Formats: sequence, C-alpha cells, structure tokens
Amino acid sequence: MDNAVVQKDLAFPIVEFQRRLKAVRQEMAKRRLDLLVVSTPENIYYLSGYHTVGYYSSQFLLIPRNGDPIHITRGIEETNVKVLSWIDRSTSYMDHESPVELLATTIQSMGCANSTIGVEKISWFLSILDYERLKQLLHGAIFEDGSHTVESARVVKSNLELECIRQAARIADAGMEAGIGQIRAGANENDVAAEIQRVVTRMGSEYPGLPIFVASGVRTSHAHATWSGRQILKGDPVLLEISGCVRRYSAALMRLAVVKPASRELERMEEVSRKALENMIEAIRPGRPLEEVWNVWSRTVTEGGYEGRFKRTGYSIGINFPPDWGEGYMLSFKRGETRTLRPNMTFHIPSLVKVFGFADAGTSETVLVTETGCEILTNCKRQLFVC
Amino acid sequence: MDNAVVQKDLAFPIVEFQRRLKAVRQEMAKRRLDLLVVSTPENIYYLSGYHTVGYYSSQFLLIPRNGDPIHITRGIEETNVKVLSWIDRSTSYMDHESPVELLATTIQSMGCANSTIGVEKISWFLSILDYERLKQLLHGAIFEDGSHTVESARVVKSNLELECIRQAARIADAGMEAGIGQIRAGANENDVAAEIQRVVTRMGSEYPGLPIFVASGVRTSHAHATWSGRQILKGDPVLLEISGCVRRYSAALMRLAVVKPASRELERMEEVSRKALENMIEAIRPGRPLEEVWNVWSRTVTEGGYEGRFKRTGYSIGINFPPDWGEGYMLSFKRGETRTLRPNMTFHIPSLVKVFGFADAGTSETVLVTETGCEILTNCKRQLFVC
Repeated sequence: MDNAVVQKDLAFPIVEFQRRLKAVRQEMAKRRLDLLVVSTPENIYYLSGYHTVGYYSSQFLLIPRNGDPIHITRGIEETNVKVLSWIDRSTSYMDHESPVELLATTIQSMGCANSTIGVEKISWFLSILDYERLKQLLHGAIFEDGSHTVESARVVKSNLELECIRQAARIADAGMEAGIGQIRAGANENDVAAEIQRVVTRMGSEYPGLPIFVASGVRTSHAHATWSGRQILKGDPVLLEISGCVRRYSAALMRLAVVKPASRELERMEEVSRKALENMIEAIRPGRPLEEVWNVWSRTVTEGGYEGRFKRTGYSIGINFPPDWGEGYMLSFKRGETRTLRPNMTFHIPSLVKVFGFADAGTSETVLVTETGCEILTNCKRQLFVC
Repeated sequence: MDNAVVQKDLAFPIVEFQRRLKAVRQEMAKRRLDLLVVSTPENIYYLSGYHTVGYYSSQFLLIPRNGDPIHITRGIEETNVKVLSWIDRSTSYMDHESPVELLATTIQSMGCANSTIGVEKISWFLSILDYERLKQLLHGAIFEDGSHTVESARVVKSNLELECIRQAARIADAGMEAGIGQIRAGANENDVAAEIQRVVTRMGSEYPGLPIFVASGVRTSHAHATWSGRQILKGDPVLLEISGCVRRYSAALMRLAVVKPASRELERMEEVSRKALENMIEAIRPGRPLEEVWNVWSRTVTEGGYEGRFKRTGYSIGINFPPDWGEGYMLSFKRGETRTLRPNMTFHIPSLVKVFGFADAGTSETVLVTETGCEILTNCKRQLFVC
C-alpha cells in the first residue's frame, strides 16, 4: 500500500481544517485536556476530512494539545486516511487484533499515558466495554468527559460549510418536487420513495444520515415511518421528509401532500403546522434563547387545538452520518434550552401536528441564523399539496 | 393517543417472538441475570417487533427473568410500540426529560433496583455517560456485561427469518442486474447508484443498513467507497455491492464489472477473488471452526499472489439497522475464530483482492449453512462482467 501514488481528495482546503483544529484545541485548553480521543464519525470528519461508511469498526482521531494528530483505523480503512485526510499520521489494526489495545499503546507512544484524556462519553462509537478496557490499560491517566469539545466549534458553520448546506438544500427541493409529482390514488409508497432516491442520487446527493421518509394514510401518524409498500388511496395524507447531502453536509425539507379530496381536518392540521413554523422563523434572531423560539411554536400549536407541549421542534443540522441527519444532540429547540442562537448556526425545523391513529401534518425548512434574523435555505412552496 | 384504535402490524406471529424471548431468558438464567437492559436496535426488534429509524434517541427493552418486558422509548415513538410490538407495556420520556432517569425509575418500579442487571456493553446505543449515570442512580444493583445474550439466539435463523433473507436475496440479485446494466464508458457513478436504488426500492427493499456501494476506477481500492459523481472510463473496474432488505433482514451481493477492454491484471484479480470464494463455500459445513474456512480463503488469495493474511472474509447477516448491514460483531470468518458453524446460520462472504492505488476486485454470495453443507441464497452469474 505504501508505494501507491496517492491522489488526495480533500473536502476542504487545509486552512479550513487547521482553523477547526485550532478552535478545538482552544476548547481543550479551557477544559485542561492534554489529549482528546475523538470517536464520533462527524467529529473525525470535521477535523480531518477522513470518513468511511465503515465506522461500525472502531476508529479514533487522537488530538494532543500540542503535536500532530493521529488516526487509528481498521486496516483496510487506511486507504481513506491516505486519500481523504490532510493528517498523515495513522496507525491501524488487523481484523483479528484489538482496536482498544492499539488505542492504548498509541496513547502511550505519544507520551500521554499519565495525562488528562478526554473521551467523548456521549459518542455512540466508543463502547462501554472498550472504555472500561482503556481505563485498565492506562491506569495512570485521568479520564474526563470530552463530549462537546469538537461540537463547540461545529455548531457554528463557516462559509465553506454553508456552501455545502446550500447545495444540499437545492437537492432536497428537487427531491420534494419529484416525490410530490408521483403522488396519486393508486400509487405505491415504494414508487414515490424510488423516484425521490433516483432524482437526488443523480444530482450527487450522498448516502443520507436518515432514509427519506415517505408515509401515507394513518402511517403518517407513526413516528419516523417510511415506505412500506402501502398503496396510496383517495383522501390520503402523504408526509414527505427528504434530505440532500453534499460532502456529508445535509439540509432537509418536509411537506404534506394529500390525494384529493382533502378533509377539513387535514387542511386545518397542515395550516397549524405551517403557521407554527412561520411564527418560529419570524422569532429567530441571534441572542435569543432557543426555548423562547420553541415557546412560539408551542403556543401556536396549542392554540390551534393540538398537542404542542412535549416535543422538540427543530435541531441543528450540518455534518451527518447514519443513524441521524441532524445535530439535535448538540442543540435543539425545546423546553428548557436556555442557550442562545448565534449567527451562522443552521437548523432543520420540522413543525409537526400529530394525531395518532389519524394523521400527522408537517412542514419544515432548513434555515440559517443571520446577523439580524433568519434566512430560509430550502425553497419549496409552503402549502398543503393537493394531488 | 390512548383512544386511537390501533391496527397491529407485527412482523412475525407472536409464537415466533415468544420462542425468541424464551431462548434469551434461558441465556439470562445461565448468566444469572435478573434483568437484561436491551439497547441494541437489532435486539429490540428481534424480541419485540418494535423498530424505528429514530434510535438516535435512547430506547430500551427491559427483559426481566420473570414477568412482562417493558419498552422505554422517546415520547413520539410510543406510536411504534403500539403498532409494531407484541409487547404492550411501555413508558416514554418527553424531549426535555432524561431517558436514563426514566430507565432507572422503571427498573426500580419493576423491583430490580438491587438485582443483577445485564447491560449490553458493546452496544453503540447505550453511551458511557448514560451508563455511568445509571450506576449512580441504581447504586444497589450489580451490573454485568450482558452483551451477546440476545445474539446467542439471533445467530441461528428460524425458517421465518430465512424467508425474509431469501426475499432480500432476490432483491439484491435484481439490484445487481440493474446496476450492471447501467455501466458503460461515459456513465456516471451516480447514475448507476440511482438506478439500483430505484429498482430495489420499487421491489419493496427497506432502507438498508449500509448504502449500496458503487465505485469505479482507482476508487474501487478505497475501502467502502461509494458513488461520488465520477465518470466511468474505458477500461475502468466498477465494484458493486448491494443489499436487499425485507422486514429488516438483509442479504447482500458483490460483483466486479469492467468497461472493456479488461486488463489482464483485473481479470486475474477477479479470478482469484472468485476462486477464493468458491473454495470457501465448498469448505463450509456444520461443526467446522470459522477460522478453518477462512484459512481456505487466505491460502487461495495468498497463492494467487495477493494479500490474504489480515482481513476477515465473511460475516453473519440477518437483522440490520444502520450503520451496518452485517452481524460481523457476532461472528466473522477470520483468523483466530475457533467457534464452529451451525445449521441455519447465514453469512455474507465478500471475497476481496485488494491493490491500493489500482483496484479492488470482489465477488460475494449470501449463504446459508445447511445440515450437510452450504446453500447459496443469492443468484447472479459468478464472473467478471465485461460491459
């Protein structure tokens, strides 16, 4: 492998990655971390450009406060370090070897065996078992929760990142148009989903963090339902939620369609979901606590006669790998969220009005917090689509 | 929500779920676990039928040694318990509440606060942070690693499960045919991926655990590369790996195509990958250690002049949710794997010959271990496809 001539394919210029690394190291200094073990695929990509679908095998990016970062990957994934990462130092384990033992020996070789080490305790991809073993192997180290060290930088987007999200929004727009174009009595949920996937993939949309959502009839009221082979009938609601993904950055979009005739109840639900979204968007501006904006949504839905007290509505969106396309664990519009909006944050805001056993109505946009308010990045007529 | 009339949509008859639960409880007894906290989405589905794409929010299935199991989900996901699970007891948290606190109080209410509790320490979806908090909240309990308690049953498939995998194999076959049909000089990787997704989704294939893989040219040698907008050129290898997914059960299939003229080197690599797979398949029979079968692959590839010493080749396949379509963490063909094959185990076996910077050649089948040997479930001509 070492002799191959490698054509690098970096997602961003090196200065962009260096800026990100610097911001993360400042946060590490604040937290007095000597070393950060990054195990979240989004964070590894954010800092290095390296990514793979194969993150079901352990992988880490080690960020010392000073000195060069090091990748640890499964053997076959070193190809992706060479091609995709601006960071050249890497080591890898074979499939019969222990990733966490390699992690421990690498930390030792960096001189950090007795240091303060941050691990991402909220990360899905460092297991409890591996963490317990790591603590045994490095019994001289002090382990701290390093969660959100990288996210503290990720939550505000650079112009290069926004460019990806804008492109992703164009794809979500086109996917929505394609999906709505397929809806009619007698069509099958599968056919709608197939056409959306065909269109967005041809436009270069990458594999999404979540599948597209296509649900019809009562299935719209089953959370996160997607295509199931159900035939769409006269009068059925059809709820579509679609993301575009460009260089792993997503934008998403939700609309409700109905096969005519639309019932009065569905029309009313869609209207409430839409108004609640529009009221939220008007309320968005830098400095405002997210809870305050969520309250606007909650009030609108409650006054409209629906349940609006419990569910978050809207989450940060950016880099994504399955099983989520959002960054809701970083920041969401919900009760009790007192942190404030900042310019260049991006959100997907699905406003859902839910009646289990009947239907869910939903409307969303992907938005950018600007210096003065809010820019809507997705671009699709905001209405109930009667097909 | 409570007043809605619910039409249940169970993936399997209740007796199938009861059989699974009984097997898991026998394993719990062996391990002396009073309670098992199941957090792996595949395991929750296996035992209950409940599933959602929304497992990025915490969810648990609590299995006491005696008494009724209980679901814990995010509020909006209770809809899916009602529709998809044969288990009726459930409780849920709102988006501003703490899932792990609900987990602790639920365990207390079951009378298990001072019991021996198994948690799946290898599961991605119980974080270190939540586990540490759970131990604080239930300081009277004894926590054991409950990993593989459910998997010990899952690894051998029932006839109902095999029926799903057979259907998934038909879809993978059709997807492969559709993909190969798109390959020609001037075609774009995206178009190939779009057509495969269109075809398999129309056939009812559900969202896959991994995206389909479409890579051309030198990108075939970048592990897990998939569509990137690259234009396919004369002489290019194109590596396709596709899964079908039926009721969350997968089968997968890999083939190499080449836009003519095929180089002698590519032909040779494909031949070695194919022969190594065929030799493995001939070696598969119940009672044989997986390592022994892997040795056959390793020897064939090494004798063919390629690197065959380090990579696993083949993994258990069955229920899948992103980010993996395999069950490789349960059982893989690799060095040191002394466990033995048993009838009704299913595997996907991608035999890869890798030359970084040039190309990877690969051939695979999804297979079933029978009473006497091996049945091949996928059905696609086994050859280098010259397009």
